[in-house]
Amino acid sequence: MSDVRIDDLPVRDELRGKSPYGAPQLDVPVRLNTNENPYPLPEALVERITERVREAARDLNRYPDRDAVELRTQLARYLTDTGGHEVGLANVWAANGSNEVIQQLLQTFGGPGRTAIGFEPSYSMHALISRGTGTGWISGPRGADFTIDLPAAERWIAENKPDVVFVTTPNNPTGNAVPRETVLALYEAAQAAKPSVVIVDEAYIEFSHGDSLLPLIEGRPNLVVSRTMSKAFGAAGLRLGYLAAHPAVVDAVQLVRLPYHLSAITQATALAALEHTDTLLKYVEQLKSERDRLVSELRTLGYDVVESDANFVQFGRFDDEGGSHAAWQKILDRGVLVRDNGIPGWLRVSAGTPEENDAFLDAVSELKKEHSA
Amino acid sequence: MSDVRIDDLPVRDELRGKSPYGAPQLDVPVRLNTNENPYPLPEALVERITERVREAARDLNRYPDRDAVELRTQLARYLTDTGGHEVGLANVWAANGSNEVIQQLLQTFGGPGRTAIGFEPSYSMHALISRGTGTGWISGPRGADFTIDLPAAERWIAENKPDVVFVTTPNNPTGNAVPRETVLALYEAAQAAKPSVVIVDEAYIEFSHGDSLLPLIEGRPNLVVSRTMSKAFGAAGLRLGYLAAHPAVVDAVQLVRLPYHLSAITQATALAALEHTDTLLKYVEQLKSERDRLVSELRTLGYDVVESDANFVQFGRFDDEGGSHAAWQKILDRGVLVRDNGIPGWLRVSAGTPEENDAFLDAVSELKKEHSA
Repeated sequence: MSDVRIDDLPVRDELRGKSPYGAPQLDVPVRLNTNENPYPLPEALVERITERVREAARDLNRYPDRDAVELRTQLARYLTDTGGHEVGLANVWAANGSNEVIQQLLQTFGGPGRTAIGFEPSYSMHALISRGTGTGWISGPRGADFTIDLPAAERWIAENKPDVVFVTTPNNPTGNAVPRETVLALYEAAQAAKPSVVIVDEAYIEFSHGDSLLPLIEGRPNLVVSRTMSKAFGAAGLRLGYLAAHPAVVDAVQLVRLPYHLSAITQATALAALEHTDTLLKYVEQLKSERDRLVSELRTLGYDVVESDANFVQFGRFDDEGGSHAAWQKILDRGVLVRDNGIPGWLRVSAGTPEENDAFLDAVSELKKEHSA
Repeated sequence: MSDVRIDDLPVRDELRGKSPYGAPQLDVPVRLNTNENPYPLPEALVERITERVREAARDLNRYPDRDAVELRTQLARYLTDTGGHEVGLANVWAANGSNEVIQQLLQTFGGPGRTAIGFEPSYSMHALISRGTGTGWISGPRGADFTIDLPAAERWIAENKPDVVFVTTPNNPTGNAVPRETVLALYEAAQAAKPSVVIVDEAYIEFSHGDSLLPLIEGRPNLVVSRTMSKAFGAAGLRLGYLAAHPAVVDAVQLVRLPYHLSAITQATALAALEHTDTLLKYVEQLKSERDRLVSELRTLGYDVVESDANFVQFGRFDDEGGSHAAWQKILDRGVLVRDNGIPGWLRVSAGTPEENDAFLDAVSELKKEHSA
C-alpha cells in the first residue's frame, strides 16, 4: 500500500510524470519571488475586515450570495473610477483568484477540441490551465526583447486559428506592457481567423506607466479584461480575481462556474479591502517608484533590464548555460529569494520595501563584483 | 452591442441554450430548500473566527499556505476522531467546497475521452461537473425505491467501463444511505471493468444512522471519500470541502489544483470552526431528531417518505404530471420554500429548526386536507 504512487493510479496520461506548479515556498528573510505586495494591510483595514467577517460569520450556515452582487458592484465602481471606462455589475464577474477566472473562461470558450495561444514567455498558468481544461496550447512567439512581434503574432493567429488568445499586459515575468495598438491588432487578427476570445490579463496594470485597456471592451464582446486583488490591493492571501467584459460573457461563464464558488467570507473581506482603495493605491505609488529605482540601479550595476510596467523587474543576462540558476542560488545565499522562471539568462525580482530592495541590490552588486573579479 | 447574447459568443457548443445551475434564491420566511443547517454558528465561534481572520488578514499581502498543512492536519484529526479510521495530513486534501474537490478529481481521473457514472437521481453536480471537465456522463440506474439495484449497477459498470464511479451516501436528494457491502461490490466491479476511481460522496454522513465508509480507503487506493463543512459544521457560506484517500490520490490532485486555490481567510475560518467541533456536532444531533420527526409526521399525514440518513427528507407522492411542482408552489404560498428536484412525484425538504419544521408540517397538512376535500 505504501508504495502506491501517482502513476499507479488511473490518472490521465498527460499527468504522468508531472509535478505540481508552484514557486518554492522557502523561509528566507527577503522574499522577492512571487510579486507579492510587501506592505501588510493597514491596521484600520484589518479591523474593517474583521467587522465585515464577523457579520458574514453570523450567517455562515447559509450559502453565500451565489452571484456576489454587492462585490461585483463595488469592483465595477473601482474599475469605473480607475480604468477610464464606465462598467456596471453586469460587466463584472469574480472568482477565487484570476486563475479561477481564467479556468472558467477556458471552460466556456476553450476546452476539448479547441486551442488557446499565448506569447511566451508569459504567465505560465495560462498554459497550465489550458491543459487542465483540455484546451490545446499553442506557444506563440515573442521577440528577443520580449515584445510581441506583431506581424509574426498575426501570422500565428491566422495559421493556428485559436479559440482563445492570451495577451498579458504588463507581461509576467518580463514586465513590459503591450501597446494598445498591438492588442487591437491581435483582436482583429483573432476575429478574422475565427471568432475567438481575447483575454487581456491585466494582473499588474495598476503598476503600469500607461492606462488600462478596459475601454477596449466597448463594442468588442469577445474581449475580456482579467484582473486581480492580489497585487495592487496587497491581498494575495485573499484569492480574489475578476474580469470585465460584455454582459454576455458574464452570463456565459455562469454556465460553467461551480455554484456558490465564492465564499461569504471572501466576499466580505474583498468588500472591506475595496473600501480602503485609496490607501492601498498609495502603496502602489511607492512600489512604482521602488520599481523604477530597481530598473535604474540594476542598469547602473551593468545588468540588462527589461523595461517594466509591473511590480517586478526582469534582469540579466547571465550565462545561458545554467548561469541564471547559479546566480539565483548566490542571491539566495545572501538571504534574498528571487524567481528563476527558467528563461535562460534572466531572473525576476519583485519590488519590495526600500529595505528589501536595498538588500537585493547589495546582493546583485556583490554578484557583479565577484563576476568581474 | 446590447443585443449580444451568450449564443452570439464563441462558447462551446454544449453550452448553447443552457442556463446556470442553482436553486432559486427566494426571500421567504422558512427556507428548507438547500439543506442548509438552520442553526447560526454560536457567538463564541463567531468571535474565534474573527480572531483567526484578524491574524490572517495581517499577512494577507502574502500568498496563503499553498498546501493548507494546518487545516488538512485538523481535518485529518476530525476524521480520525469521528470516522472510525486513522488518517493523517497525507490522506487529506481540501478545496473551495466539495464541488471543487470533485472538479479536481475529475480533472485528474476523468476528462476528455473518459467517462463517469452516477446512479440517478443523485447530486446533480456530479453530472454537471463531469460535463464541465469534458468527462462523458453515464446516468446509471436506481430502483423504484431509490436504492441502488446492485446487479443492475454491476452490469452497467461492466458494460460501460467508466473511469470514475460516484456513490452518494447518504444520497441526495433521496436521503437513503448506501450499504457498505454495496459500495464494496461497486468498487470491485469498477476495478474489474477497468482500474477506475470510486468517489464516495459523504456530504451528509454526519446525519446518518450508520457509520462513515472512511475505513474503506485502507488498501483501496482508488477509493476516495468526499466531505464538506457546509452541512454538519453549519458553514455553507464558507465553501470548504475535503477528501480522504490514499496519499497518492492527494499527490495526484495537486497536479491539477490551481495554485493557492484556498485563501488564507478560508483556511483561518475553517480552523476556527474545527476548534468548535463538539458544539457543532450537538446541533447535528438536534437535526437528526428533527429529521426523524419529519419522517414520522409526514408518514402520519399520509405521505410517502424515503428512509433518510441525511438532514433532509424526500416525500411524495404527487401526481407525476406536474403535481410535485404544483405542491411546491402551494407550500411556497404558505411561506415555506422546499426543493423541487425535478423528480416526478417527489419533493425534498431540509430539516430546519423545530419552528421551521412545524411551519412546513402545517403547510403540507393543509395541502393534504385540500387534496382529500
